[in-house]
Amino acid sequence: MSVKAIHSRDNAEFRFLKNLAEEARARREAGLTLLDGWHLIEAALQAGLKPEKLILTEGVVMPAGAQALLETLPVLSLSEALMRALAPVKTPTGLMALLRIPQPAKTRREFAILLEDIQDPGNLGAVLRSAAAAGVQVVYLSKGCTDAWSPKALRGGQGAQFQLAIVEGADLAEVAAEFPGGVYAAVLGAEAALYQLELTGAVAFAFGNEGAGLSRSLQACCQPFSIPMPGRVESLNVATAAAVCLFERVRQTAYAGSGGRQ
Amino acid sequence: MSVKAIHSRDNAEFRFLKNLAEEARARREAGLTLLDGWHLIEAALQAGLKPEKLILTEGVVMPAGAQALLETLPVLSLSEALMRALAPVKTPTGLMALLRIPQPAKTRREFAILLEDIQDPGNLGAVLRSAAAAGVQVVYLSKGCTDAWSPKALRGGQGAQFQLAIVEGADLAEVAAEFPGGVYAAVLGAEAALYQLELTGAVAFAFGNEGAGLSRSLQACCQPFSIPMPGRVESLNVATAAAVCLFERVRQTAYAGSGGRQ
Repeated sequence: MSVKAIHSRDNAEFRFLKNLAEEARARREAGLTLLDGWHLIEAALQAGLKPEKLILTEGVVMPAGAQALLETLPVLSLSEALMRALAPVKTPTGLMALLRIPQPAKTRREFAILLEDIQDPGNLGAVLRSAAAAGVQVVYLSKGCTDAWSPKALRGGQGAQFQLAIVEGADLAEVAAEFPGGVYAAVLGAEAALYQLELTGAVAFAFGNEGAGLSRSLQACCQPFSIPMPGRVESLNVATAAAVCLFERVRQTAYAGSGGRQ
Repeated sequence: MSVKAIHSRDNAEFRFLKNLAEEARARREAGLTLLDGWHLIEAALQAGLKPEKLILTEGVVMPAGAQALLETLPVLSLSEALMRALAPVKTPTGLMALLRIPQPAKTRREFAILLEDIQDPGNLGAVLRSAAAAGVQVVYLSKGCTDAWSPKALRGGQGAQFQLAIVEGADLAEVAAEFPGGVYAAVLGAEAALYQLELTGAVAFAFGNEGAGLSRSLQACCQPFSIPMPGRVESLNVATAAAVCLFERVRQTAYAGSGGRQ
C-alpha cells in the first residue's frame, strides 16, 4: 500500500486537486474529476471504471468494500482541513477518488436526450439520474450546459453518469438533424400533448435552460409538445418535466395496452 | 402608508420574525409564516391570501405590482443585515411578507397524496409543486414530515402550497382507511407496474421517507406497485417518483386511448 500524506495547502498536488474540484476547465484539460464518497466510487467500479487514486482523511473508517482498493491504488492522505476544502459538501465523507472521465461509450442510440444550457449542477444531476433510470442511452449537452462531471453534478446524478454515454459540447441542431427518429421538445402551450406522441422506436427529447426554456433555433429542429397540467401551476422544473416525459416512453414501449382506461 | 423601521437584533418583533423563519414550532404556535420574494407573495395574492404585513430592506426597488400593497398593508423596514438574517437564501430578495397559514380548504378530495416522514424541505416543496401541477387537491402529511410552510419548503413549492389543501400531522393509516378510492404505494420490487393500475376516479398515492421508504404499517394499508426502470439505477428520488406517478393519473384521466402503441 502506497500512501502519501499532504498537510499543506501550498502542496502542488493538493492545488491540482482543488482546481479539479472547482474548475470545469481544469477537469476538461486534465480529463479527470473527483468522486466524493463510497457510494459514487462503488457505482464507478460497478460500471467498470477504476479510479486513478484514493484520497482519504487521516483516520477515516473505510467501508468494507473499500479496503481491497487500498491495496491496488495509490493513496493520498489529507488532513481534515484539506479534505473539507476539497469536498463538495459541508460534512465530507472523508473518502474521495480521482477518476479519469470516461469517453462516451459506443452504445445504441435509440433513446437520447438533448440538454441545452442547463445551468444548475443539481438539476443536471437529477435529469441524468431520471434518464439512466428510464433507460436513456446517450445524453448530448450543449456548450452552455454546466459540466456533467463536476462534483455537484455527480452528487446529483448518484452514479447515473457511469451508465450513460455523455457527449459534451455538442451542436444540438446537428444532433437533432441526424437523429434516426423523432426529436421532441416540451414547449409551454404547444398543441400536441405528450400523451398523444408516438414514442416507440428511436426517440429523443430536448430540454432547455431552467429560465429561458429551449432556444428558438433548437425548437425549429424539434416537434413541439406540452405536458398537460390540470392544476393551476405554470410549469414543472426541468428535472421533473424530463422524468414525466422519459417515463411516458417507458410506458409506451413496455406497457401500452395494459391497465388504465383505454 | 404605515412604516416601522427596525435596526436592532434585540428588537422583540424582529426576534419574533426570526423565530418564525427558523422554528416549525414557532410557526405552528403563531399560525404564521414568512414568504420570501415577490414571486411567492404574488402567488399568495392570486390564491386570495392577503399577507398581514410587508417586510422590506431599506431602499429595495419594489416590483410594480407590489406598490399598491404598500398602501394597504403595514410595512416593516429592516436594515440589510437584519434582512439577511431572516431570508432563507444567501442573497435576499429584499422583500418578504408575513402570512397567516391558511386552513386546509374544503375541497373535493378525489386526488390525494399521503406523505410519510419526508425530511428535506426542498424535496417536500418539489413534491407539492408536481402535485399542484397534476391537479392533486389534498395533501396529508404525517407528524414526522418536515413543515410544509417553512421558508425552504415554500421556496421549493413556488406557490404550490396556496393551491392545495394541506393537512399536517395526519394519521396516514386512518386517512388511507377512510379514503373513498384506491390508495397506492410505490414499493421497490412490487409486482404490479404503475402502468397497470386503474387510476381514474378517486385515487391517492402514498410516498415515504427519502431513505427508509414507506413504513410497513402504512404499506399494509395500501396497494403496492413499482415504477418500471429499464435502466441500471436503483431508485428515483421521491419528488421525481411522485411526478411520474401523478402524471400517469393525468394521462389515464384525460388521454388514455390516444397516442402511443395501443
